[in-house]
Amino acid sequence: MTNARMLWRDIQRIREEAPLIHNITNYVVMNTTANALLAIGASPIMAHAAEEVEDIVRAAGALVLNIGTLSPPWVDAMIRAGREANRRNIPVVLDPVGSGATQFRTSTAQHLIREAAPTFIRGNASEIRSLILSEQATKGVESIHSSDETVDAARSLSRNCRCVVSVSGATDIVVAGTSTFRISNGHPVMTKVTGLGCTASSMTAAFAAVNSSHLRAAAHAMALMGIAGEMAAERSAGPGSLQMHFLDALYSIQESDIEQRLRMESS
Amino acid sequence: MTNARMLWRDIQRIREEAPLIHNITNYVVMNTTANALLAIGASPIMAHAAEEVEDIVRAAGALVLNIGTLSPPWVDAMIRAGREANRRNIPVVLDPVGSGATQFRTSTAQHLIREAAPTFIRGNASEIRSLILSEQATKGVESIHSSDETVDAARSLSRNCRCVVSVSGATDIVVAGTSTFRISNGHPVMTKVTGLGCTASSMTAAFAAVNSSHLRAAAHAMALMGIAGEMAAERSAGPGSLQMHFLDALYSIQESDIEQRLRMESS
Amino acid sequence: MTNARMLWRDIQRIREEAPLIHNITNYVVMNTTANALLAIGASPIMAHAAEEVEDIVRAAGALVLNIGTLSPPWVDAMIRAGREANRRNIPVVLDPVGSGATQFRTSTAQHLIREAAPTFIRGNASEIRSLILSEQATKGVESIHSSDETVDAARSLSRNCRCVVSVSGATDIVVAGTSTFRISNGHPVMTKVTGLGCTASSMTAAFAAVNSSHLRAAAHAMALMGIAGEMAAERSAGPGSLQMHFLDALYSIQESDIEQRLRMESS
Repeated sequence: MTNARMLWRDIQRIREEAPLIHNITNYVVMNTTANALLAIGASPIMAHAAEEVEDIVRAAGALVLNIGTLSPPWVDAMIRAGREANRRNIPVVLDPVGSGATQFRTSTAQHLIREAAPTFIRGNASEIRSLILSEQATKGVESIHSSDETVDAARSLSRNCRCVVSVSGATDIVVAGTSTFRISNGHPVMTKVTGLGCTASSMTAAFAAVNSSHLRAAAHAMALMGIAGEMAAERSAGPGSLQMHFLDALYSIQESDIEQRLRMESS
Repeated sequence: MTNARMLWRDIQRIREEAPLIHNITNYVVMNTTANALLAIGASPIMAHAAEEVEDIVRAAGALVLNIGTLSPPWVDAMIRAGREANRRNIPVVLDPVGSGATQFRTSTAQHLIREAAPTFIRGNASEIRSLILSEQATKGVESIHSSDETVDAARSLSRNCRCVVSVSGATDIVVAGTSTFRISNGHPVMTKVTGLGCTASSMTAAFAAVNSSHLRAAAHAMALMGIAGEMAAERSAGPGSLQMHFLDALYSIQESDIEQRLRMESS
Repeated sequence: MTNARMLWRDIQRIREEAPLIHNITNYVVMNTTANALLAIGASPIMAHAAEEVEDIVRAAGALVLNIGTLSPPWVDAMIRAGREANRRNIPVVLDPVGSGATQFRTSTAQHLIREAAPTFIRGNASEIRSLILSEQATKGVESIHSSDETVDAARSLSRNCRCVVSVSGATDIVVAGTSTFRISNGHPVMTKVTGLGCTASSMTAAFAAVNSSHLRAAAHAMALMGIAGEMAAERSAGPGSLQMHFLDALYSIQESDIEQRLRMESS
């Protein structure tokens, strides 16, 4: 089966099964990621109260932990939900937003890796690197590093955490142990829309809920983000319209769009 | 006077009076509902601090309590605001988001019904049913039940709470005691946009601020949501553009749109 | 150099330098203001945890304190971040959302003025007046006062706080001591989109990060908001599409747009 066909099959399964995706995520992107999950066919729920996160994650197909606007009570809820997910073999996606930018974020991300045993970690190159080094070089949500350094960092992290590591960038890199996918879809204006990285993490959760290959699920999520972003960019006059067309593209994407556009290589 | 004429008169009053609508609502939809209230002509305020909710609700035309991303301090603020609204005869709309999905949500919704005496409860069929039964069957924000069961549940709840109950669905049902409205406006893509249910609750508050008939206010709110949703869907390529056109439709809706589209029956 | 040329030069600097703008702001507008900052070329970060606000503000070009959905822990974080900004000469923008509407908001805004020494205060006429008087007349986010009273209030506040005061309205007023700019750009539909006032505050921070003249930075921010709003309104059918086109306009604005549209007078 081609990569395009496998990605399309996952989208069909998401649309059919509408998996519940539990997000403990940041205030900035809650609306955006809920809409993206609905557009692709999943059922988002945002919930962070200690009183209920275990009940919710038990019913979910996957859990997203995103530290974008973290504070201590939210971290407690993330650990509680993560442990329950671990007990029940429910995939956990960690988005270490801003790790490396402050000691609090780096140490919280590392704490969540230990306590909530993520199945997936998705971030940009600076965030991923901060989790294996003690550098403090993240600037906001951006990062520039050489591709080779990034792959090495992703591999180290994947080995240390026994998880799939996705690195967003002009070329997305998805690593599980020694296997690597490189996805070259996407469009530069996507970096001017807040929350598309966080959306990639929630999309990873949606694919993880229907595909038991973690490596495949992560690669498919990144590829779908990139393809929908390209489709949206072609109809857009800037980041405002891109955001709108992106949701429409997730909703209306066809197998032929994927066949024509997918640029995914494995090694 | 026709139903269309009565609905239109309420919209005109909202535009003229710009009633202040106090929302204690969830993080996911704050932006969406504020924009919808502004588009129809109301004045939204979002405020949840115990230090000020009583001062704010005193100046408001109606209060919305929405438990979508609840946590204990927010529930305390909701009760405080609800009691002040009760003392001053200011209508209270309860949106029991996710009631039935977790024990915490169900018991919080029931607690708010006792302590904040809502004038209106608006939810989907699962949420409404969870408030009269002890079932635990809500899946995310969706629900499917037979129409008859739903009407029975809404009637029970309306009787028990002495309030108007609105149930969102393909056909919306609005019940006050033995009176029932059925509204068949709307479009399926609306279910792919997060927060339109919550927006219906805030819209109910806007109508309650200008129409002393609670049954009418609730029915008009549901009808306006459906009609604006239809107008938006006709111009949309998916849920992203629907969300945008929906706000434009609320802002520019004319009496003729209502006359041509309204599908509302009473029994 | 013309006013248009000076404004354009600032926009170019924002695009080149991508200054980090630290926002401690309200839930309603976090997404909106992050997107606006990205669209103009700045790097937004939203962070409110006491554990990290000082680390973040240290790396920032400017800090925004917005009390739109305030609660005590957020106020503590604002003071902590504000003091660190003061120590390091990093500009601070205070947006006293709803000051005058409740005692809690008025006293919190006044407390922040004392403890976080803002470089800029931006609000509507009611909010600005509430900070020099003890009136309680704000209604939601709106206000109507005579232009002369507003200028007097802005001057008093500017003198008392030794800061630049920006007052949003049909004509925006920017005051530093005895210098005044009046900007007559903008469009009435902008008042039907939530968060554009808050966006003006975050935009003020972006300009302050690249222009050491505080008066100029504030005036440029208000002018850009108005011009982008006009450009968006011409392509829009209501507040939904205005919000989208506004982001596109920020992203694609040219020097010629500013030359043709800028209506800014100083006295």
